[in-house]
Amino acid sequence: MIKEIAQITIKPGMDKQFEQGVSQATPLFLRSHGCHGVQLFRSIEQPDQYTLVVDWETVDDHMVLFRESPEFQQWRGLVAETFAAPPNVHHVSKVL
Amino acid sequence: MIKEIAQITIKPGMDKQFEQGVSQATPLFLRSHGCHGVQLFRSIEQPDQYTLVVDWETVDDHMVLFRESPEFQQWRGLVAETFAAPPNVHHVSKVL
Repeated sequence: MIKEIAQITIKPGMDKQFEQGVSQATPLFLRSHGCHGVQLFRSIEQPDQYTLVVDWETVDDHMVLFRESPEFQQWRGLVAETFAAPPNVHHVSKVL
Repeated sequence: MIKEIAQITIKPGMDKQFEQGVSQATPLFLRSHGCHGVQLFRSIEQPDQYTLVVDWETVDDHMVLFRESPEFQQWRGLVAETFAAPPNVHHVSKVL
């Protein structure tokens, strides 16, 4: 199991629209192959910065199967207009 | 409850020393006021980059009580020489 970590900066004032979009998109993630959970965090110091954490079985479940699926297009359709810049995405594995 | 997110880049080849230092330091965090957990993640794309996630009751538990404690000095003593740069630290609260 690995985690996708997506750092997302939104346009000022679009926090409610973004959070609602993530909430609506959660079932799109959860029905995708290898997805085991979605969490959203908001920066306390920089409230326009969010961190989306998605649990996947493998990096390919995210980067190949999900990215090439209709669910990815729907996810981006729900939130893309709230993004101030392209998300910064990487993957991590748990050490401790 | 909030999370401290510390992005830490280590010097090449110091991964075992860094991970051992975090493991040894975990009790220092856990006995600090308001600390409820420590997790360490390693980037898959950039293996010299780690993310330390610490659960605190409040930002002040981390930034005031812990930072001014002997435990913080011991923590940095265990790992500081493995850092390639000062850690990038922020705090997040859970939205979803």
